[in-house]
Amino acid sequence: MQRFFDPAQLAHAPRQELHNGAFTAYAETPARAETILRAIGGAEIPEDRGEAPILAVHTAAYVAALKAIPALWQEAGRPGEALPYAFPVVGRRPLVLNRVDALLGAHSFDATTPITAETWGAAYANAQTALAAAQAVLGGERAAFALCRPPGHHAGADYCGGYCHLNVAAMAAQAMRDAGVERVAILDIDYHHGNGTQDIFDARGDVFYASIHADPVRDYPFYWGHADERGEGAGAGATLNLPLPHGTRMAAFRAAQACALDAIAAFAPGMLVVSFGADTWEGDPISHFALATADYPVLAEDIAARGWPAAIVMEGGYAVEALGDNVAAFLSGFDRGR
Amino acid sequence: MQRFFDPAQLAHAPRQELHNGAFTAYAETPARAETILRAIGGAEIPEDRGEAPILAVHTAAYVAALKAIPALWQEAGRPGEALPYAFPVVGRRPLVLNRVDALLGAHSFDATTPITAETWGAAYANAQTALAAAQAVLGGERAAFALCRPPGHHAGADYCGGYCHLNVAAMAAQAMRDAGVERVAILDIDYHHGNGTQDIFDARGDVFYASIHADPVRDYPFYWGHADERGEGAGAGATLNLPLPHGTRMAAFRAAQACALDAIAAFAPGMLVVSFGADTWEGDPISHFALATADYPVLAEDIAARGWPAAIVMEGGYAVEALGDNVAAFLSGFDRGR
Repeated sequence: MQRFFDPAQLAHAPRQELHNGAFTAYAETPARAETILRAIGGAEIPEDRGEAPILAVHTAAYVAALKAIPALWQEAGRPGEALPYAFPVVGRRPLVLNRVDALLGAHSFDATTPITAETWGAAYANAQTALAAAQAVLGGERAAFALCRPPGHHAGADYCGGYCHLNVAAMAAQAMRDAGVERVAILDIDYHHGNGTQDIFDARGDVFYASIHADPVRDYPFYWGHADERGEGAGAGATLNLPLPHGTRMAAFRAAQACALDAIAAFAPGMLVVSFGADTWEGDPISHFALATADYPVLAEDIAARGWPAAIVMEGGYAVEALGDNVAAFLSGFDRGR
Repeated sequence: MQRFFDPAQLAHAPRQELHNGAFTAYAETPARAETILRAIGGAEIPEDRGEAPILAVHTAAYVAALKAIPALWQEAGRPGEALPYAFPVVGRRPLVLNRVDALLGAHSFDATTPITAETWGAAYANAQTALAAAQAVLGGERAAFALCRPPGHHAGADYCGGYCHLNVAAMAAQAMRDAGVERVAILDIDYHHGNGTQDIFDARGDVFYASIHADPVRDYPFYWGHADERGEGAGAGATLNLPLPHGTRMAAFRAAQACALDAIAAFAPGMLVVSFGADTWEGDPISHFALATADYPVLAEDIAARGWPAAIVMEGGYAVEALGDNVAAFLSGFDRGR
C-alpha cells in the first residue's frame, strides 16, 4: 500500500491545551507521527497540489484566519500560543472582526486547539498528504495511507477544534468527487465523533458519513454525533452515527462497523475514505474503549473485503508507545482483506 | 432613591478567568460591590420573591445547570472552579448530556465565567436585588437602584458569560411587563454590549433594547452588538445598537445616549430599566472609553429628564478605587434630573 507523509507536518507542536478546567500538556504530539512512520517503514513525501483542494472544503475566511492569527497574536503582545476564550454561541454569522481573540473564537469550538506560527505550514503539508492518498486511489491503487497528523475530523468548513485545523478526510473525499467519483463514503472509526466531517457534508447527498464513536452524551465533542443526527436537506439519510458506551470491546465494535459498512453498501459509493483513529485501543490515555492491537487487522479486513478503493487517513490515537504497532496492524489487515 | 443590596451577593468570588490566552485574576470581585455600598451609604436587603421571576427570563435547564455544576465538577475529581473548554458552535440544540464539561459548554459562551459552589446563591440574591428595584418603581417610586453584582447583561436565557449568570436587567424588565406595564425599555450604558439582554428580547416587540458600547469588532463580546442588529420577527426595530470607538469622551457618548433616548421615546415605554456600567470611566483597567466622574451626573440627568420611572441595575466597572464615586455620581444626577 502506498503511504504518504511530509516531515513538515511535525512543525506544529503546541505546548498546552485547556482541558477539564486547567492547562495540561498537549496530547497531540509530533512523536505520534514519528512512531507511526517508524512502524510502517517510512512513507513518500506527497506532491504539492496547492490550496484549491483545501478551499474546496474550507472557507477562504477560515484559511485566512489560520494564516493571520499567529502574527496578530504576537502584535497583541501575547506570549505563547493563540487560544480563544470567547465563542459565538448564539447568532453565529460572518463578521469583520479586528481582534485576534474575536477571530479565534469565531473559528473555534474549543480551547484545546492552539494556533502557532507553525500551524498553517504543518496543516498545509498535512492536507497534501491526504490529497496524495486520494490521488493514488484515483490513479488505480486499491488503497493508500495518509499519515496525517494533526488529525482532521473535528475541523469544520470554518472552524478548528479537537487538535484539528484542516479536515483531511473531507478533502480526500472532495478530491474524489471532483475527479468524477459520483458517490463517496467516509467511514470514521476514531474514538471520537468527527463533527467537522459531518458538518461539512451534512446537507449533501453525494458524500455518506458513517461514524462509530464514544457516546457524545459523555465524550467529546458532546454536541455532535448523537444517533438522531442523520443529515439534513439533500443529505437527509446520508449520515449515520453509531455511538457506543465506555468499555466497548471488539465484538460490539465489529458489529457496529458491519452495520456502518452495510449502510455504506446501500449507498453504493465509488470510493471510500477511512478516518482511522487508534484511540479505540485499550490503553489510550484519553479514551475509554478496549480494542486490542490484534483487533485492528480484523476490522481492516472487514472493510477491505467490501472492495471499495480506499484512502485511509490517520486521525487520533494518543498512546504513543503502541500507536505505531496499532497502525501497522490495521494497514496489514487492509492489505490482506483485498 | 431606594437602593437594594444583599450581602449574599458577595459569596461568588472566583479566583481566575481565562483571558487573552492565559489565566488571570478574576476582575469581577466582591470588593466592587463593597466599595459601591460604602459610597452610596448602604442599601436595603431585598425581599425574597422566589424563583418564578428568574424562570420568566431563563430556561429551567439553565437554572438547573447552574445549581448542579459545582457538585458535578467535584464528583469528576476536579480541583478549583468549574470552567468550560468546548462549545457548540454549530447546531446548538437541547441535549441530555452526562458530563460536567459538556453541560458547562452548552450553557456558556466563554471561558471567563467560572461557576463555584457559591455562584447560585449569590446569583439568586442578585436577582432579588434587581426585582426589588423593579418592584419599588412599580410601587410608585420614580427611580430605584439595584446594586447588582455579579453583573447580568451578558447572560442569555440559557447561557452565562462575561462574569454574568442571571440577567438582572432582563428580569427587572420582565417583572414590569408581568405587572402590567405594556412597553418597557432597557437602556444599556455599560462599556460592553449586553448580548444576553439583546438575545432574550430579540424577537419581542414589547421590550425595547438600546445599547451604547465599545464597537464589538474589537471589543468583547465580539459577536453581538453590531449596528445592523435591530431585532427579529415581532422584535424587528426594537433593538438599537450604537457602537462607539476606543477613546470615546463625553460629547460623543452623550450624543449617542440622546439618540438612544429619542428612539426609546418613540417606542413610548411605560417604564425604563437602566443597565449602568461604570467601565466607561477613563481609568477602567479593562475598557477604553474616557468618561470622567463628573460626566456621570450629566448622563443620569439626561435620562431622568425624560420622565420614565426607572430601575437602575448595576452592571460592570472594574476600577475599584473609583467605582463607588462614579456610581454615587450617577445616582445623584438621576435624583437631580427628575
